[in-house]
Amino acid sequence: MKITRFIPQVVFGENSFNDLNSFIDQAFPNKNQYTVYVIDSIHQETGLRKRLAPGSRDMVIEFNASDHEPKTADVDKVRDDILAEKAGELPRVIVGIGGGATIDVAKAVSVMLTNPGSSVDYQGWDLPKHPSVPKIGVPTLAGTGAEATRTAVLSGPVRKLGINSDYSICNGALLDPTLLRTVPADQEFYTGMDNFIHCVEASSGSAMNDMGRPFAIQAKESTENFFLKEKNYGEFMVGSFLGGCSIANSSVGICHALSYGIAFIRGYRHGIANSIVFNHLEEFYGKDVMTFRKMMEKHHIELPQGVTRGLSPEQLNKMVELAYMLEKDLISALGPDFKKILTPDKILSIYEKM
Amino acid sequence: MKITRFIPQVVFGENSFNDLNSFIDQAFPNKNQYTVYVIDSIHQETGLRKRLAPGSRDMVIEFNASDHEPKTADVDKVRDDILAEKAGELPRVIVGIGGGATIDVAKAVSVMLTNPGSSVDYQGWDLPKHPSVPKIGVPTLAGTGAEATRTAVLSGPVRKLGINSDYSICNGALLDPTLLRTVPADQEFYTGMDNFIHCVEASSGSAMNDMGRPFAIQAKESTENFFLKEKNYGEFMVGSFLGGCSIANSSVGICHALSYGIAFIRGYRHGIANSIVFNHLEEFYGKDVMTFRKMMEKHHIELPQGVTRGLSPEQLNKMVELAYMLEKDLISALGPDFKKILTPDKILSIYEKM
Repeated sequence: MKITRFIPQVVFGENSFNDLNSFIDQAFPNKNQYTVYVIDSIHQETGLRKRLAPGSRDMVIEFNASDHEPKTADVDKVRDDILAEKAGELPRVIVGIGGGATIDVAKAVSVMLTNPGSSVDYQGWDLPKHPSVPKIGVPTLAGTGAEATRTAVLSGPVRKLGINSDYSICNGALLDPTLLRTVPADQEFYTGMDNFIHCVEASSGSAMNDMGRPFAIQAKESTENFFLKEKNYGEFMVGSFLGGCSIANSSVGICHALSYGIAFIRGYRHGIANSIVFNHLEEFYGKDVMTFRKMMEKHHIELPQGVTRGLSPEQLNKMVELAYMLEKDLISALGPDFKKILTPDKILSIYEKM
Repeated sequence: MKITRFIPQVVFGENSFNDLNSFIDQAFPNKNQYTVYVIDSIHQETGLRKRLAPGSRDMVIEFNASDHEPKTADVDKVRDDILAEKAGELPRVIVGIGGGATIDVAKAVSVMLTNPGSSVDYQGWDLPKHPSVPKIGVPTLAGTGAEATRTAVLSGPVRKLGINSDYSICNGALLDPTLLRTVPADQEFYTGMDNFIHCVEASSGSAMNDMGRPFAIQAKESTENFFLKEKNYGEFMVGSFLGGCSIANSSVGICHALSYGIAFIRGYRHGIANSIVFNHLEEFYGKDVMTFRKMMEKHHIELPQGVTRGLSPEQLNKMVELAYMLEKDLISALGPDFKKILTPDKILSIYEKM
């Protein structure tokens, strides 16, 4: 039996960020406890940091998502800092304000406040044993709805793998489309494309079911509308949320499998790595790759060139190996004989084009 | 600030009804408490009643939804019966198994187990003061997702009006598409049309926002696909759920306003009353009325004729009055000057055609 989790309470609307504290008070009324805000440090620059109104006992923790994707060490440190400052007392709620990286830090910390050891121990599926502290996701990027997924993606000493647990899903989300207006154009494009590509892969995979499909269809349409028709930030933000909602009932596909290699070797972020790969997958996702290129063209996006130039055979083999690690997703995309279609040579020939 | 509520845990899939008790145990683990199943008595005939596996302390209560829509007196009686049998002890969960009527009984009873007085006292918005008993909705009809809405529609001595409360929304839903296969063709059509019409009205009303729209679009498409293309019960059932999800962020419109009158005067159920009216609203919902007629034709549906024949002027005036009670919805549909467009004469001229 599989239980699909949805976010039970969502505040949506222009300038709803002003209601954040009322939302917290209504959803988690115990005002004797403190609140932790984890906010992307970019919001020192955007001005959002100043709009936070923490109470005297609340903690505000900045996470520098521009510098690096969340690491298990980051999560452990935030957890330790909170418990040290509050002598072990737990917060009533953790609020993650930022892109998927920052929201994932909030989600992971909420789990680690009540589960012993290091977050490294919980990279995987359903490993935390104890219910977590509640959390609210406040996205300031439109990607693939971290505020709506079970996963808190973390890079550990051994591997990049999420904490996937019923305890790592948000208890609430606040979606204020005006927060998207400070995002740089390139980043807006690549995070939007992550959602688009997720939906393309999900919709064409055999793992998709009737529960996930409508969410992916609408999420995909929201990105196409945004980048090809009209920049409606409300629709775009809800589209990100819906993309997140679809993930539990679908898989990713060939693009994600190949993107991990170039992210690993070249250090590209998730959205841009996916875009670099997707641009060369017309053989698998023909019509959608055409749409993707139309969106790129309209927004004058220039993908990095020569991405795989000068890589050693060892590095390339490592990248093939990383791609094959997404076995379930490749089965969903290509069937159980996926290695006969997506042979190592085939993968290398795609990488060569980048 | 408006908080949109989603059902936090949903089990979906063919034959997932077999997992009902595991779902209950996982979602509400206190096995020392008993469970109440409220089931449409039609399921004596469909065989579903026999598939329930209540524990020795659990209660099974049948509700005859074919006989009448839920009344406040029904809800009060079920509540009293439970508390009498269990000497005031509360159940861990109430499971509503049936169409919207039966699920609404379960939702209303869950509120009345913890709030004093009669359910008549809570017809309206946000009137219950005390958190309710948890409940799970198990739809066996595909309508407009009672398992996903805040409303428990009840007919009281004074009026038909729902209990609308954060305490009347389900805590879980189990969506098993195979349960739809025993529904008679006419009923399947009319409940499906209720969803279709809801979505048409919602999508064209000014009350709709970016949070509600994608749910209504997909819900509408699911009914069109089901009745015009292929009978995919999975998509149809999820479409009903999504229709329910869209309601909190939208309004109904002219069809609902006019349907209350004929439901009141002639006793028609909600779905068929809406269908009778919608068929004559091409002036307002042109393209969608054409689609509706195509669906009717394909499924050889014959709407009742002469519905308003022989009604007295007093009865007709009462019906106009009932229509105007949906003021907010008519403003959403036609603007603040809706009475200049939908004049009493206009309403009567539409009624005359039925």
